[in-house]
Amino acid sequence: MRNIKIIIEYDGSKYCGWQRQPNKTSVQSEIEKSIFKVTGEEVIVNSSGRTDAGVCAYGQVANFKIKSDIDVHKIPIALNAHLKKSIVVKDAQEVDDKFHARYACKGKKYMYVINNSKYASAINREREFHYPKELSIDDMKKALKYFEGTHDFKGFKSSGTCSKDTVRTIYEANLEYSNEKIYITLKGNGFMYNMVRIICGTILDVGIGKIKPEDIPVIIESKKRENAGKTLPAHGLYLVEVYY
Amino acid sequence: MRNIKIIIEYDGSKYCGWQRQPNKTSVQSEIEKSIFKVTGEEVIVNSSGRTDAGVCAYGQVANFKIKSDIDVHKIPIALNAHLKKSIVVKDAQEVDDKFHARYACKGKKYMYVINNSKYASAINREREFHYPKELSIDDMKKALKYFEGTHDFKGFKSSGTCSKDTVRTIYEANLEYSNEKIYITLKGNGFMYNMVRIICGTILDVGIGKIKPEDIPVIIESKKRENAGKTLPAHGLYLVEVYY
Repeated sequence: MRNIKIIIEYDGSKYCGWQRQPNKTSVQSEIEKSIFKVTGEEVIVNSSGRTDAGVCAYGQVANFKIKSDIDVHKIPIALNAHLKKSIVVKDAQEVDDKFHARYACKGKKYMYVINNSKYASAINREREFHYPKELSIDDMKKALKYFEGTHDFKGFKSSGTCSKDTVRTIYEANLEYSNEKIYITLKGNGFMYNMVRIICGTILDVGIGKIKPEDIPVIIESKKRENAGKTLPAHGLYLVEVYY
Repeated sequence: MRNIKIIIEYDGSKYCGWQRQPNKTSVQSEIEKSIFKVTGEEVIVNSSGRTDAGVCAYGQVANFKIKSDIDVHKIPIALNAHLKKSIVVKDAQEVDDKFHARYACKGKKYMYVINNSKYASAINREREFHYPKELSIDDMKKALKYFEGTHDFKGFKSSGTCSKDTVRTIYEANLEYSNEKIYITLKGNGFMYNMVRIICGTILDVGIGKIKPEDIPVIIESKKRENAGKTLPAHGLYLVEVYY
């Protein structure tokens, strides 16, 4: 069996998320169907992690095993020919048999986009979170820096999620502001379920003055979900890159 | 009668263009319908100029006359309530009776987006032109600068268009390159039909080495459509701003 690693871009607004679900169209099932059409093989495609409905990916990574002797360089073109235009396989490589997109993952980069203009965008509204009220960008930038480093992020995961180890390292947390849009970028060794969206919700609370930037270390330290901000919606979140 | 000037953002990939057409959904007809729903008045909405199907606008400007005494500040919210989400009225002002969005227009700013990565984008493909071959960005930048200034752009209009006066002034012509995307911005006192898309097609020919940057003044001077490049597709073009 050959082990194939692929890089995928998709528009999450058009799918029920990454993971296969009965009677719904998922990114995973669409890719598995296209592999079947190309190779005749029924495979399971493992990604670096699930993404919710509405979450877009520029660089999701996945792997699958096939018997087919198709030239690996032809895999993206062959799969794209059968995929809807809102899913694009951008790269394929043959990798070691032991490679697993989830278990081998060393880190990820996410971006969250907030449209801070008065009206929601006619062009991008399905791919950004609209928040029309005034925000202190400077305070948001200051607050975000406190997330960098190694912390126990127990308070920044969805309460229903059971993660034994809640310590994560965020290598870089940046905020850029341009044309009334806020781009929050987080690069880390791993993110728990909803962690990015909760961090961004907390940063938004800083923007409106509900939380002070200096309060962030105390909130992280408290390890209590209720001290952090709301979970921002899935549309606005982008999985930018996965590191191995 | 009150004369109302509005600023509109729209996703041109979802309409047959600005202008009303029988049995098709146009931006103009959607706005006229929403004005009827709000005021009960059948009006004609004049824009600064038509945009083709696929062309997006961040800041199209239009005007219309109504009898209704609706508070002008409430017009955007009232119209947006009846519009599809791919059209957003971002501003409304009451203006002098003589103001006409087309005749009063003093200039426009357009942007054209070329995705120069290997595969078309899953997320943005309906709103950018995909060109995967290698391009010389430096040459494209150099070539674009020759378009600045006042020139007879006779060779840069759709051959079917009859424009008596083909002299236009381009105040600014810039190219930015970021993450495999090329953003060409043109600011001028007016653009003939397809002029921006033909200029961008010519710049693309420079990028692939078919035309040298230094040839641009000769091509402009020749005033012949066949010396310029192809008309790039409508998707990729954005009307950014209209000046009065």
